[in-house]
Amino acid sequence: MPNFYSAVLVNHREPLRIVETPAVTPPSGHLTVDVDFAGVCGTDVHLTDGRLPVPLPLVLGHEAVGRVRALGSGVTEDTLGAPLAVGDAVTWASNIACGSCFYCVEEQERSLCGNRKVYGINLGADDWPGGSGGYGQQMLLQPGTTLVRLPDALAPEQVVALGCAGPTVVHGLFGPARPSVGDTVVVQGSGPVGLASAMYAKLAGAATVIMVGAPAARLELATSIGACDVAIDITEMTDAADRIAAVTKLTPGGRGADLVVEATGFPPAVEEGMRLCRRNGRFLVLGQYTDHGQTPLNPHLITKGQLRVYGSWAFSGADYVKYVSTLPRLAERFDLRRLVTTFTLDAANEALQAMRDGTVMKAVLTPSASFGGEPTEKAGGAA
Amino acid sequence: MPNFYSAVLVNHREPLRIVETPAVTPPSGHLTVDVDFAGVCGTDVHLTDGRLPVPLPLVLGHEAVGRVRALGSGVTEDTLGAPLAVGDAVTWASNIACGSCFYCVEEQERSLCGNRKVYGINLGADDWPGGSGGYGQQMLLQPGTTLVRLPDALAPEQVVALGCAGPTVVHGLFGPARPSVGDTVVVQGSGPVGLASAMYAKLAGAATVIMVGAPAARLELATSIGACDVAIDITEMTDAADRIAAVTKLTPGGRGADLVVEATGFPPAVEEGMRLCRRNGRFLVLGQYTDHGQTPLNPHLITKGQLRVYGSWAFSGADYVKYVSTLPRLAERFDLRRLVTTFTLDAANEALQAMRDGTVMKAVLTPSASFGGEPTEKAGGAA
Amino acid sequence: MPNFYSAVLVNHREPLRIVETPAVTPPSGHLTVDVDFAGVCGTDVHLTDGRLPVPLPLVLGHEAVGRVRALGSGVTEDTLGAPLAVGDAVTWASNIACGSCFYCVEEQERSLCGNRKVYGINLGADDWPGGSGGYGQQMLLQPGTTLVRLPDALAPEQVVALGCAGPTVVHGLFGPARPSVGDTVVVQGSGPVGLASAMYAKLAGAATVIMVGAPAARLELATSIGACDVAIDITEMTDAADRIAAVTKLTPGGRGADLVVEATGFPPAVEEGMRLCRRNGRFLVLGQYTDHGQTPLNPHLITKGQLRVYGSWAFSGADYVKYVSTLPRLAERFDLRRLVTTFTLDAANEALQAMRDGTVMKAVLTPSASFGGEPTEKAGGAA
Amino acid sequence: MPNFYSAVLVNHREPLRIVETPAVTPPSGHLTVDVDFAGVCGTDVHLTDGRLPVPLPLVLGHEAVGRVRALGSGVTEDTLGAPLAVGDAVTWASNIACGSCFYCVEEQERSLCGNRKVYGINLGADDWPGGSGGYGQQMLLQPGTTLVRLPDALAPEQVVALGCAGPTVVHGLFGPARPSVGDTVVVQGSGPVGLASAMYAKLAGAATVIMVGAPAARLELATSIGACDVAIDITEMTDAADRIAAVTKLTPGGRGADLVVEATGFPPAVEEGMRLCRRNGRFLVLGQYTDHGQTPLNPHLITKGQLRVYGSWAFSGADYVKYVSTLPRLAERFDLRRLVTTFTLDAANEALQAMRDGTVMKAVLTPSASFGGEPTEKAGGAA
Repeated sequence: MPNFYSAVLVNHREPLRIVETPAVTPPSGHLTVDVDFAGVCGTDVHLTDGRLPVPLPLVLGHEAVGRVRALGSGVTEDTLGAPLAVGDAVTWASNIACGSCFYCVEEQERSLCGNRKVYGINLGADDWPGGSGGYGQQMLLQPGTTLVRLPDALAPEQVVALGCAGPTVVHGLFGPARPSVGDTVVVQGSGPVGLASAMYAKLAGAATVIMVGAPAARLELATSIGACDVAIDITEMTDAADRIAAVTKLTPGGRGADLVVEATGFPPAVEEGMRLCRRNGRFLVLGQYTDHGQTPLNPHLITKGQLRVYGSWAFSGADYVKYVSTLPRLAERFDLRRLVTTFTLDAANEALQAMRDGTVMKAVLTPSASFGGEPTEKAGGAA
Repeated sequence: MPNFYSAVLVNHREPLRIVETPAVTPPSGHLTVDVDFAGVCGTDVHLTDGRLPVPLPLVLGHEAVGRVRALGSGVTEDTLGAPLAVGDAVTWASNIACGSCFYCVEEQERSLCGNRKVYGINLGADDWPGGSGGYGQQMLLQPGTTLVRLPDALAPEQVVALGCAGPTVVHGLFGPARPSVGDTVVVQGSGPVGLASAMYAKLAGAATVIMVGAPAARLELATSIGACDVAIDITEMTDAADRIAAVTKLTPGGRGADLVVEATGFPPAVEEGMRLCRRNGRFLVLGQYTDHGQTPLNPHLITKGQLRVYGSWAFSGADYVKYVSTLPRLAERFDLRRLVTTFTLDAANEALQAMRDGTVMKAVLTPSASFGGEPTEKAGGAA
Repeated sequence: MPNFYSAVLVNHREPLRIVETPAVTPPSGHLTVDVDFAGVCGTDVHLTDGRLPVPLPLVLGHEAVGRVRALGSGVTEDTLGAPLAVGDAVTWASNIACGSCFYCVEEQERSLCGNRKVYGINLGADDWPGGSGGYGQQMLLQPGTTLVRLPDALAPEQVVALGCAGPTVVHGLFGPARPSVGDTVVVQGSGPVGLASAMYAKLAGAATVIMVGAPAARLELATSIGACDVAIDITEMTDAADRIAAVTKLTPGGRGADLVVEATGFPPAVEEGMRLCRRNGRFLVLGQYTDHGQTPLNPHLITKGQLRVYGSWAFSGADYVKYVSTLPRLAERFDLRRLVTTFTLDAANEALQAMRDGTVMKAVLTPSASFGGEPTEKAGGAA
Repeated sequence: MPNFYSAVLVNHREPLRIVETPAVTPPSGHLTVDVDFAGVCGTDVHLTDGRLPVPLPLVLGHEAVGRVRALGSGVTEDTLGAPLAVGDAVTWASNIACGSCFYCVEEQERSLCGNRKVYGINLGADDWPGGSGGYGQQMLLQPGTTLVRLPDALAPEQVVALGCAGPTVVHGLFGPARPSVGDTVVVQGSGPVGLASAMYAKLAGAATVIMVGAPAARLELATSIGACDVAIDITEMTDAADRIAAVTKLTPGGRGADLVVEATGFPPAVEEGMRLCRRNGRFLVLGQYTDHGQTPLNPHLITKGQLRVYGSWAFSGADYVKYVSTLPRLAERFDLRRLVTTFTLDAANEALQAMRDGTVMKAVLTPSASFGGEPTEKAGGAA
């Protein structure tokens, strides 16, 4: 078997290193894939910075699209029952729930499973050297992986363009907060989660989508692809009270929004979001993934407004399947390719820096096309 | 027409005064009632203290039960279509929605109508001298009042025992937060709203109800009538972290409660309530009626817990009807009379003080039985 | 006051007659309108045929758009609070619920009010000679009418194009059956209700809409304006089993549709619709308005399929407001004008015949532009 | 290892035969149990009659309670994470979903999994001679079995008393049809499914439960344990129109029931049930498990009544856990032991006959106490 390359996090706060690894034959129930595109997520920036406990060395990359390289015995179809063959374009959910805890069995809400294995996050490189994350030219996918063969109508870049923000938004937005035809929706935040929220709200028939975020380039992108009707730049309108007044004025009767989606990760945005809702409105708190501790918040807003406030955590395999199945319509309506900036695998550190700086909407690595575009032979030659 | 007596708020922060007023003949579409029982609500204490803007002079009393005294022309049945006759025992919702605003027409959520007229709160004594609140021997009820003839199975004291806490809880608890058979429910607060929440949760089949509140006498009452399975006294367990640990330990798998109901009015209870919920749990913020401003709160709890947090404001006529229609089963299961301490109308100031001090669960005035029990003749004699 | 003309149903099964009537000044709380467009509904055909009990003489027309002619005292704004002035373009719901029955008060579901007054149906011409239906140049609108000033973005023809099918579909489709992003939706029927269902499903983000109906011209129209992705002509594929096989094959995994909407009025379509649903799917029975008695149906389909079957009856003022508020987006996406064929008021009988024959999708009368386009003066001249 | 006995279906339409089988040591991930109680279900009667395709020979019995006999390696806790030890009283769901099909992954509705393995139904005796159904003294439980250690408050007879009707009702009733506090509920049918529906409706706070069924003995039992308020005997009131009139008269305002639960298996009951609902009411079609073909039904009832009609199929492991967790409150309120009539294992054919004749509410076998009460030694002695 020829070798292949991966970009590996060996120590926190150090650049990733390119490591060469021998390919493997997939055991029974497993399959291997050539990774064509791997998204660089804001979480990856946090991981390299050492803000979350992860096993080292680690091949990052929990957002990926590729082609089937080899099928282990017993692997004949994808999660939806479509037949699988070598060379098929596929994508897969990064996480595998345990299937036997309270949240998997009784609650049927696998996004909350406490025992999840996640490619590129808690499956260290030692599990299979070089092959457990998307920042590698090959990956070994385990039994239980939610795997979907791409519909013909979808290009791989379209699948990776939203990264994990896509299924995360599907999970949060299509629960009880679900946008309805005619809704006025405010999205707080203009990163991938905010952008995906705006696009899905539009797809669901929202009458008006107002985005409140920064920097200007992201707001312009969101506006120009049609994801929002109005954009408010928080670096220009720096006072929350002004923003609340401006947004409220745009809503029917000046009552506030039917639905507000928080996608900022910034704790004070939560009270601001409550103030943007109309009474009896819905507020989806989708961005408070990091524990920043307490922030001042007036709980009277919840009672007085009779608000329905929904948290949302991660996504399940079911959400991933729904995400891929709704992508053709999303891609038909919005030019997803405009979100993507590609980097070769050896430029992984530059890609991380671009995400850290917010200079691109979505950095995407192209592992299989890196190192000459014929990765395994070149790797073989380098050996 | 003979006269009658009312206890009237003439100036804030002064004792109510007994005022004598001539009775009236109800105009078309109206009816008059003799008030048998009028609940003394915590809100009445706030009103006498001048904490809310209300017209003066004001006959307090937005919780009442009585008997039909006279029917204006065209008034022949109650809201449910049951025929009405002089002498029938009746109760009525305190508020009348406008029927033509966004919340009345489009949202069909009349508890949020901004133009509501409320007996005993914003209908001043000048609207009909002495007859617009329950702290009077007679009331004049307007067209649009939600009026229900009492089922035979219900005694008037049972209807007034929970006061406006009853329909308020029906409104909040039987929306999307609705308790389900088998749920573990935590109720924060042991006043009328907390107590009604606990009883309704039990009625809905909750497996376990845990009440967190004070003082001890109220917790003992809640426990002894069967409204809760476990009571935790916050004056004994003064640290929130201890309470969270103690309550969580009582829930299945130590995961936290399926449903938490906040009924305290104390802002820090909101974060504590979020910490008492299990992941994917529901949290009903029912008690934050007063704007106390900001309090420290960690919004990460909402996202991480994937909580569903519901505010609830006031109640509508529909809720009041539902409240009365569910009361027979509630009264069958819980001894509602034990909640009530009666006071004659001339002791209205003592009743308010008892509610201010928390020395009784529910103070109730007995207007029609006050002043000798034959109020109108006596009033006539006094004139 | 000048006179105006109406097309009046004097006797069942006779042509409508043009009748001249004097205009009136609107009493307090009322307003008068000039009727610019009045939809001709399939129900109107039934009414002229005498299939429903209605008062005679009757001015037909329960779907209309016009301009404010005169405002009675106290009428200053529309249902949403927008200010009203003479000449404003407006539309209004045909029905006025009583506001005081079980369905109005407790159930908050005014479409089920049993005491509704309906312009053009149960408000006979004697109520206000000539002015109680849309088949007249003027109408007198009563207090309680849900009235909406048209948004600037909407042309009156766009509002009338779907007639009462529009709010009827809003009522049915945006209840619990609600289409979701990514759904595969089958619509049975290609009349106005079927067409509106298909368009709203698309607007809500349905991935695929399959229409099963006839005649070919309607299916072609539905396809060419983008309301459906696939159309199956029941006059070509006459066997239900064939249709079920063909439609099922088009659904993901051959499992059947996520949502089926019955809009045919043909009883056997109900079992066929159940067979088109996937297990756990939703089935909206929107078209069985007429009681045709029993039809053979296998109820095992409901249990085995774990179907959720929803009936839907009529619409409320709230639905009408929602309909108008969602129309700008619908009109942006679909060319609603292509549905409309106009007739002058004196051609009302031809319009009814065209609807009876299905030769047009939607016949619409132009009362204010009839009789020379200056109806009142001409009417005056004719007097 | 000692031997044990089972009652085995060798050929359809022949009595079960007692077969002796050697015990086994549970492989990794498996466990063995001693079966204390095994319910005899109506489905078992159908299976012996050959009405469903099943593998032969077959040990019947898909409802069972027992004690842990031996734990295979790796089996240390039940589905809820409670530690397991030999001798622990346990119960288990009869079915094991595949976990990888559309209904398991995307729909998260495992009751609809098409690949389910079911103890006592499609797991033939050849899978493990004698040990795959509850009609045996021992069973071998496979990995993936939903297994729950009994709470201390529950006696095994209480768990088996409702048999699979218990989780079937939990699955159907606590979906969208869910009874609410104050509801008027009609239950059609008085077998185990009807009885469980009535009890759970009461537990959920229904104001009134009306049971329509037969024979008289079952209705008397339902009434005397408090499961229903009124019972109507269909053998006395034989005309459906009379029953509809009688039941409707008992509902508030004569409008019909808020919720009707069909639990008869008799196709014409479905239209009757629709006629028992009030408008906007819910109708749960829980009993149409068998395909009896078409029956006359008027679909206009669905549209006119704006009914919400819900099918429900089988139950999942999650439902089984919920069932067991709600049983303590159910058992506290209703004397479940009164439902049970026990038979020893060698009287299995008599038990089946009693269920076929409806002479008992619930026949239950006592395998571990049969053949002398020390089954394994006796079996050993017999070897």
